[in-house]
Amino acid sequence: MTSAEPQAPFRVGLLGHGTVGAAFARLLEQRAGHVEGVTGRRPELSGVLTRSQGDFEQLLAGSDLIVELIGGIEPARAYVTRAMQAGRHVVTANKQLLSQHGEELWALAREHAVQLRFEAAVAGVVPVIRVLQESLAAAHVERIHGIVNGTTNFILTEMARTGATYEAALAEAQRLGYAEADPTDDVNGRDAAAKMAILARLAFDTPVHIDQVVCEGIERLAPDDMEYARDLGLGLKLIGTAERVDGGISVRVHPAFLYPGHPLASVSGPFNAVTVESGAITEITMSGPGAGGPQTASAVLGDVVSAMIPPASTPPPSERLDVVADVVSAFYLHMQVVDQPGVLARVAGVLGEHGISVKSVVQKGLGADARLTMVVHPVLESRMFAALRALEPLDVLRTAPRAIRVIEEEFA
Amino acid sequence: MTSAEPQAPFRVGLLGHGTVGAAFARLLEQRAGHVEGVTGRRPELSGVLTRSQGDFEQLLAGSDLIVELIGGIEPARAYVTRAMQAGRHVVTANKQLLSQHGEELWALAREHAVQLRFEAAVAGVVPVIRVLQESLAAAHVERIHGIVNGTTNFILTEMARTGATYEAALAEAQRLGYAEADPTDDVNGRDAAAKMAILARLAFDTPVHIDQVVCEGIERLAPDDMEYARDLGLGLKLIGTAERVDGGISVRVHPAFLYPGHPLASVSGPFNAVTVESGAITEITMSGPGAGGPQTASAVLGDVVSAMIPPASTPPPSERLDVVADVVSAFYLHMQVVDQPGVLARVAGVLGEHGISVKSVVQKGLGADARLTMVVHPVLESRMFAALRALEPLDVLRTAPRAIRVIEEEFA
Repeated sequence: MTSAEPQAPFRVGLLGHGTVGAAFARLLEQRAGHVEGVTGRRPELSGVLTRSQGDFEQLLAGSDLIVELIGGIEPARAYVTRAMQAGRHVVTANKQLLSQHGEELWALAREHAVQLRFEAAVAGVVPVIRVLQESLAAAHVERIHGIVNGTTNFILTEMARTGATYEAALAEAQRLGYAEADPTDDVNGRDAAAKMAILARLAFDTPVHIDQVVCEGIERLAPDDMEYARDLGLGLKLIGTAERVDGGISVRVHPAFLYPGHPLASVSGPFNAVTVESGAITEITMSGPGAGGPQTASAVLGDVVSAMIPPASTPPPSERLDVVADVVSAFYLHMQVVDQPGVLARVAGVLGEHGISVKSVVQKGLGADARLTMVVHPVLESRMFAALRALEPLDVLRTAPRAIRVIEEEFA
Repeated sequence: MTSAEPQAPFRVGLLGHGTVGAAFARLLEQRAGHVEGVTGRRPELSGVLTRSQGDFEQLLAGSDLIVELIGGIEPARAYVTRAMQAGRHVVTANKQLLSQHGEELWALAREHAVQLRFEAAVAGVVPVIRVLQESLAAAHVERIHGIVNGTTNFILTEMARTGATYEAALAEAQRLGYAEADPTDDVNGRDAAAKMAILARLAFDTPVHIDQVVCEGIERLAPDDMEYARDLGLGLKLIGTAERVDGGISVRVHPAFLYPGHPLASVSGPFNAVTVESGAITEITMSGPGAGGPQTASAVLGDVVSAMIPPASTPPPSERLDVVADVVSAFYLHMQVVDQPGVLARVAGVLGEHGISVKSVVQKGLGADARLTMVVHPVLESRMFAALRALEPLDVLRTAPRAIRVIEEEFA
């Protein structure tokens, strides 16, 4: 395939037009040009089927790939089955369907030599499905720990942060859109259980049904469990586990305390994260925002693009951007200074002449060990370097100033 | 393809037999049966070429795929070129080669319709190449921040932890095998620069040569930079950045301070981590052990397996493991107790009868608010639940005890 040949568009049929479906339709349109650059074919929406409009057989006939975002078992199962029987690739975000009927659907995909992709079904944009299926296809996975439900992680983070009760934290999550009006499947752990069943299936090459997952939710947790446990150095999360144990595997979801060094301990708010442990590689941790319309839509689009491209192709450069050397950075400055009044004024004066403004300052030490350290607001690096050259000859400095860049973003 | 047809072995020709090469040869043999289960074909080593033995053309003729682990530019470049011209897939861990001659090699792979995979060239087992090429193929990446050199991250972690000088921390890294005898390319940032050039190429679809990467190493850092900066809430890392800026992109490697909430701030020791930021998805962070023989070999094997399988196939279950419901867990216990002597003895007595031993205890509060909280060592869950039932009727307890699992691992 060369980019000179004009290619027919790649027709994507969409089932469902809720939050995620609408976000996917928008994203597909926005990114169509970029996807064409990567794959050589322009993706376009061939049609949308909702409960109230559209004809499935007609949509199928006009599509190369079906995106299923209806959720639930039926009619999603019938549509996905029919699409694969008709030789179409399928991308789905439907964790309930896969955790209950996965074996039958995966067998169908193999039988009809089509792709069934489902990155968006587990952990939002965190690419754990791809990593398990591909990067770790040859690894002996020992254990997976995951925070795979953003709603419950938000609630637990709120309870820990504010001392709120479960009920109050749930209400806050609903107010901010992190919890549904009916949050039952999130808070009782069943949403996480479906995801852990899928991850266990991939990690251990063994069939796992959601009903085999031991499951306990967060509804009965009290703020004082967190408060007292903090004295023991522990933080509380809803943890999904899939691991090899004597006699087979264990797959479970329950609240669990973590010690502070654990890679999942710092995952807060509506985020998801998964740690995969394997003998040879120790561990990989991946984290990112959990489900949400744009996030889930992005994972779905990644799957659509993967279905369009041959594996491991690095397309020709589609851009020739300038690689810019002089950029804007915040800086930390460290100066050994003489211990006398007016030093800060002299230094700040030079910085001011170069248009550099100070964010925070610490003065420390006495006599021969007097130091002035500061963080300055972002400035074009060439300007900072000019200011350093101007500072260097000042008689109030005992040695040349040292500057180190500061990455400014502060995360929640 | 069905598993009933016997398939010819998939022949892997190995160039190089240093630390990574030897680890890869061992891993390939160990995991051959598993890979056969996943792909339908058994991988086998067709031969090994080293500086002193083997004939390249003969090895090539007997191989389906070439793994290049020689490093450096020549003869690696000539071998990789010749292999792809002969229609063979190539897997390489060679960041210098790709950051200097990537465009020519990627063009060759497209021209000959072969796969050129290089996950192991960047960030060890952290699957950032795959995620950029596949999961995020349709995303508009705004920025990548990475800790992509384990040697320098170990040195900076040691300096921060112990107050050691750069020279002393480097010597410690060498003693523990985290730094080479000649660490030049690690500590001056050039190793990280090669990796950032590759990531920038993939993220922004634009050619980036290593010589375009602005690069500053860690050799001139002093322990007091860290000490004073800590007062400002900052931690120091060697950060690689690739980002869109006015006028094009900026790709650079330099020491930089991070605020504590930054997803890379907690990455310590010889670990690697990469954060990818994109408008729609906010951010994905991936972390894991950096380069090391077994880790790099694992990433190489992941690429070999990917080259063997059609995309997104979920193979039939190869195992039928039992899903075990009763497993071993540590627990946190919370009891509201009467405020009188002997309570702890009564509770500990019941736990002891059930074979449960206590790891830590906190007693708190007075009178009606007296609490007893503890963490107990791992125990079969059914035994813990039996102990809870036995505790419940005790007259020293004011309410039923509450139990929450504790995930015990403590990480460095």
